[in-house]
Amino acid sequence: MEGRHPQDSLVVMTELVLPNDTNLYGNLMGGRLMYWMDIAAALAAGKHCNAPVVTASVDNISFESPIKLGNVVHIEAKVTRAFNTSMEIHMKVWGEDFTHQYKYKSNEAYYTFVALDPNRKPRPVPTVIPQTEEENKLFDGALRRRQLRLILGGKMKPNDAQELMALFMKD
Amino acid sequence: MEGRHPQDSLVVMTELVLPNDTNLYGNLMGGRLMYWMDIAAALAAGKHCNAPVVTASVDNISFESPIKLGNVVHIEAKVTRAFNTSMEIHMKVWGEDFTHQYKYKSNEAYYTFVALDPNRKPRPVPTVIPQTEEENKLFDGALRRRQLRLILGGKMKPNDAQELMALFMKD
Amino acid sequence: MEGRHPQDSLVVMTELVLPNDTNLYGNLMGGRLMYWMDIAAALAAGKHCNAPVVTASVDNISFESPIKLGNVVHIEAKVTRAFNTSMEIHMKVWGEDFTHQYKYKSNEAYYTFVALDPNRKPRPVPTVIPQTEEENKLFDGALRRRQLRLILGGKMKPNDAQELMALFMKD
Amino acid sequence: MEGRHPQDSLVVMTELVLPNDTNLYGNLMGGRLMYWMDIAAALAAGKHCNAPVVTASVDNISFESPIKLGNVVHIEAKVTRAFNTSMEIHMKVWGEDFTHQYKYKSNEAYYTFVALDPNRKPRPVPTVIPQTEEENKLFDGALRRRQLRLILGGKMKPNDAQELMALFMKD
Amino acid sequence: MEGRHPQDSLVVMTELVLPNDTNLYGNLMGGRLMYWMDIAAALAAGKHCNAPVVTASVDNISFESPIKLGNVVHIEAKVTRAFNTSMEIHMKVWGEDFTHQYKYKSNEAYYTFVALDPNRKPRPVPTVIPQTEEENKLFDGALRRRQLRLILGGKMKPNDAQELMALFMKD
Amino acid sequence: MEGRHPQDSLVVMTELVLPNDTNLYGNLMGGRLMYWMDIAAALAAGKHCNAPVVTASVDNISFESPIKLGNVVHIEAKVTRAFNTSMEIHMKVWGEDFTHQYKYKSNEAYYTFVALDPNRKPRPVPTVIPQTEEENKLFDGALRRRQLRLILGGKMKPNDAQELMALFMKD
Repeated sequence: MEGRHPQDSLVVMTELVLPNDTNLYGNLMGGRLMYWMDIAAALAAGKHCNAPVVTASVDNISFESPIKLGNVVHIEAKVTRAFNTSMEIHMKVWGEDFTHQYKYKSNEAYYTFVALDPNRKPRPVPTVIPQTEEENKLFDGALRRRQLRLILGGKMKPNDAQELMALFMKD
Repeated sequence: MEGRHPQDSLVVMTELVLPNDTNLYGNLMGGRLMYWMDIAAALAAGKHCNAPVVTASVDNISFESPIKLGNVVHIEAKVTRAFNTSMEIHMKVWGEDFTHQYKYKSNEAYYTFVALDPNRKPRPVPTVIPQTEEENKLFDGALRRRQLRLILGGKMKPNDAQELMALFMKD
Repeated sequence: MEGRHPQDSLVVMTELVLPNDTNLYGNLMGGRLMYWMDIAAALAAGKHCNAPVVTASVDNISFESPIKLGNVVHIEAKVTRAFNTSMEIHMKVWGEDFTHQYKYKSNEAYYTFVALDPNRKPRPVPTVIPQTEEENKLFDGALRRRQLRLILGGKMKPNDAQELMALFMKD
Repeated sequence: MEGRHPQDSLVVMTELVLPNDTNLYGNLMGGRLMYWMDIAAALAAGKHCNAPVVTASVDNISFESPIKLGNVVHIEAKVTRAFNTSMEIHMKVWGEDFTHQYKYKSNEAYYTFVALDPNRKPRPVPTVIPQTEEENKLFDGALRRRQLRLILGGKMKPNDAQELMALFMKD
Repeated sequence: MEGRHPQDSLVVMTELVLPNDTNLYGNLMGGRLMYWMDIAAALAAGKHCNAPVVTASVDNISFESPIKLGNVVHIEAKVTRAFNTSMEIHMKVWGEDFTHQYKYKSNEAYYTFVALDPNRKPRPVPTVIPQTEEENKLFDGALRRRQLRLILGGKMKPNDAQELMALFMKD
Repeated sequence: MEGRHPQDSLVVMTELVLPNDTNLYGNLMGGRLMYWMDIAAALAAGKHCNAPVVTASVDNISFESPIKLGNVVHIEAKVTRAFNTSMEIHMKVWGEDFTHQYKYKSNEAYYTFVALDPNRKPRPVPTVIPQTEEENKLFDGALRRRQLRLILGGKMKPNDAQELMALFMKD
């Protein structure tokens, strides 16, 4: 199984914010955005490993700017790194108001997916070979984020998370 | 108002075919695809003219390959040419099965949108400046397609459609 | 397989325009209307041939009057003519505002469907026997529209479309 | 305000049963059908009185035959009688399987709607003038059903429901 | 098969009223509420009998206070009594406006469900053992409501409905 | 503004997994579950502060057991602690199969909401007064989770996160 480039898994999704997607302020509901992000990330993961995938976890997401009714949502999803049977997907989300020619960042997030074989057991996925500077940075950070996930999920002791510890200690 | 390139209006949409989008054969319903195409085209038109737009007409669409449940729908929409207050949008649609690494063309289509001012009256839009060979071909064909639309809509006599006549006469 | 009358395939659909069906102007989105028309036409085709059907193509549609939020959409669909394994469906669409007792034409369209046998191969359908003057006119025009579809789909040369040529030459 | 015929308020609705409308047996969920019936009845009431209407009550509904995934739902709604500011709507519901040419009755029901003026207060509606035998029967029965509704809603004592009592005493 | 307490089947459902759930007044449509109530009742019935269930009938429902866009809908569903293969479910529905700290009753209703075996035939369900005063009252009333259902469905003559007659005669 | 108990903000949500909520394996999609959790959490936050709220952030979520088509989703949401204008909501999610009488934990999560005044500016919310042992534990942990959110969002340096550091250092 040959490694693949993050660019090969790029998925670009564009959605229009309709009335039923909004709260009483006419802004996109956080939950609706997470739903779209889950689909975008699943498609990027499926594109990387050519197998069915299921959502394993979602990292901390912080919602910065509200996206308005009638505005456009842009989601770009790309695999950052693979860990045997799982893949981390990085997403960037923007809102855009075409009439006012105004494009604004909404948030960034990491979702993790697991690939499944026909018996619904986890199966190995291709490794990721980063190319650009940004892809290398995302690849390196993936290990720290994975340790954080394991600690938060109670599957690793903080002391064993060397990569993460280094981050906390660094300045 | 300066002219713009077709590339500036490019919208890439990616959708996953879910159970409620399919007919009894588990294939994407034509009407559901036309709904997504209408949104993709409206976004490309809005991106070109930075104003609200409404669907004016849809050209003949022919559905070639069915897109299956769980497959991905790719839509690429781009403005081909502007006619004072209206814009023609060209779309290409593919289906893709990630598991089998199989991508197939579904159909191509032209939608026409009109830009509106705050009083909901048609307002002028920027002209289109094609750059690539394909964009030039689409730009040239737009006049013939517009004449055909006007004839089919009963707004032009066939004899006045010189561009279109030439096509019918040519071989 | 006996021929059938267009009236036998009549399907009457009535829908209410809800918030999620509308654009920022509170008018029914073109794509949502095409979705409903696809279902109405599929039902008329299925009623004519008593077999599963799939959308093959959609002719040029021109949207005349916008239909408002809270208004009613009326769709009437009827088979016009059969061509071995395919059927052309004609639809008329009106909007209606009950409070103001105002009914207005929205558009007209032709969709084409193919009937399938249990192996998903095209299967023959009953012929259409028009009865009223309008049904006869629609039946006659169906041949020209079919030639136009074949030309637009690149499956017929313009010079071979005798029915259609006559139309272009006539005045 | 002149009286109107039940036929003037007739609404014919046709819906296709899609996957998300069904339970685990692939049959239309009762709640989804009641939702469509509510819209059909609201449209018939609005057509009768040319004013906005809201659902006031729904009579006992009994679901006879399940309607299958991919089958068609037919709803016919018509005003039976008006009571100052409210209208009773009668509906008949059928399922249909085009492939097997099988049409079957699903259920019948009565919904009651109230008409509202621009201040959202109940406003008078036209009386109903039944014409056919069936319409006369529905018109006569409407009084009994209204008494039953008032008793069940705790707004009338059983002893005051003379029309209804006669029914219980009759054989 | 041991009897069970109504409390064991309690289902609490909480829904937010979104734009597409409302009519032109911004109030929850009756049909949408009946859809949610059908699901809540089906879940309570399924919890009581641990088998798949289908909606058999819905009793008279009267809609008292409209529930507004952005308000919350509370539904509490509980089995009241079982009749061999069927169960009556009682539901209470409230609306709530968190901002104004205002909670208001919307309506009450009874739905009846039938339990099915793997061949889709009705199968026996556990009896219901009421505990509280309110549960006892609902248990007792269930017989009268059942007789009313049978009469309204044409399956029992009014004279045979002794429980119901007693109610009509009592004052 | 008086403090309030977590119990006062409890929201219990019950949803049925329908076909359009599932992936190709017939299991609930992660994104759909996050959408429901966002609504449940928003309702709990609104109940605590009696003001409109918007999603500010979502903590790491790990999906343990898949929830199947036709199964029931239970969500319990409760405020754990308030930080001036924001509230942390804790949620527990279970799946349940009534037929097999099998209830299983799906996941746990923390969402953070901000309360808004009529000018859409953050406004203070009541403090939280935990009562049970579990509520006290959640209240204490809220500070550490908040520091982690601030670090992950780039708004706090790791060295300033004393509560969090203690956790990492403790064994």
